[in-house]
Amino acid sequence: MNADKDKNAKPPAGIPSQARRVFSGVIYDVWQWEQEMYDGTTATFEKISRPDTVEIIGTVGDKIILEEQTQPDRDLCLSLPSGRADQSEDMLAEAKREFLEETGYESDDWLHWKSIYPTGKVIHPWHFYIARDCRLTSVPSLDSGEKITVKLITMDELLTLADEPRFWVGAQFISDLLRLRADERKKEEFRRLIFGGK
Amino acid sequence: MNADKDKNAKPPAGIPSQARRVFSGVIYDVWQWEQEMYDGTTATFEKISRPDTVEIIGTVGDKIILEEQTQPDRDLCLSLPSGRADQSEDMLAEAKREFLEETGYESDDWLHWKSIYPTGKVIHPWHFYIARDCRLTSVPSLDSGEKITVKLITMDELLTLADEPRFWVGAQFISDLLRLRADERKKEEFRRLIFGGK
Repeated sequence: MNADKDKNAKPPAGIPSQARRVFSGVIYDVWQWEQEMYDGTTATFEKISRPDTVEIIGTVGDKIILEEQTQPDRDLCLSLPSGRADQSEDMLAEAKREFLEETGYESDDWLHWKSIYPTGKVIHPWHFYIARDCRLTSVPSLDSGEKITVKLITMDELLTLADEPRFWVGAQFISDLLRLRADERKKEEFRRLIFGGK
Repeated sequence: MNADKDKNAKPPAGIPSQARRVFSGVIYDVWQWEQEMYDGTTATFEKISRPDTVEIIGTVGDKIILEEQTQPDRDLCLSLPSGRADQSEDMLAEAKREFLEETGYESDDWLHWKSIYPTGKVIHPWHFYIARDCRLTSVPSLDSGEKITVKLITMDELLTLADEPRFWVGAQFISDLLRLRADERKKEEFRRLIFGGK
């Protein structure tokens, strides 16, 4: 929140190494650098960065864990278990932590599905994990900014959520769901991936 | 760029009216407010905003205008004619300006296709316009941060771009293309929309 702090902070991947952090907020950092243009002049370029997000596709039997969630400044939305990875560099550990806190479920069968590194002006990496054969081991420990109810849905219901405006997930995941809907073979591959071949 | 300027600036739609602008950059503004939590405590919440983007689907005969573009800090990408709407409040006027500057084309048959207002922490509205029956009237006037080549592609080629990682467009438009690919009726409706019933 202090524009003068950490002027020597190192920019994340996706932002030129010579960029300077000109603002550091609660979530977002703002970075600027002098960019040489095609005509030899320079201009101040700007990008922003924020902590990575982890998203978890957790399965219980033949169902998928979905959250119904409200936050203090937002109406009801649906989401995968997910959160801001701001407590360690270990994204799998962050995924396990958020998943347990929000749902009370654990798994012994985690895999990294994919990571998305947006290439635009907002540096916000997403990491998707799959947690198979989850079991409920505790009561969710929600913080004061969360109200979450866990539901179990089928894979067909998940694919239908691509048309649900209240489904709160990165836009690329909506495209993933649409691609699965359009290709029966890919859909079956994905079903085996998240349910472990069952 | 001065953290102290315009503390009384009014936040855009999507950010609570009591939010204060704590940073104003070249593109991005950062807004913060004290949010009451579910347990009665408060926490500092943060969102960012930036100027709207206009995107243009321009057609020439039975073809669609596509740009091949490089920028000083980016490799080759493909895009629709588009730009930052930072010169007026009139989005159609901004679309016409960007379209003419980048492509040299004009149209007498513009329509607003849709606007997207992201509901997350990054307030960045997108406005899509359709420009039918375009005609080349001038040489593009590119600024020192643009190298653009205009190409004409078919609608099927546009739909294929949903699989092209270098296609530089809002992720929601990729979902739009996937939905058109999955529904022959919607695809024909869209074809009539952008080509004017031909």
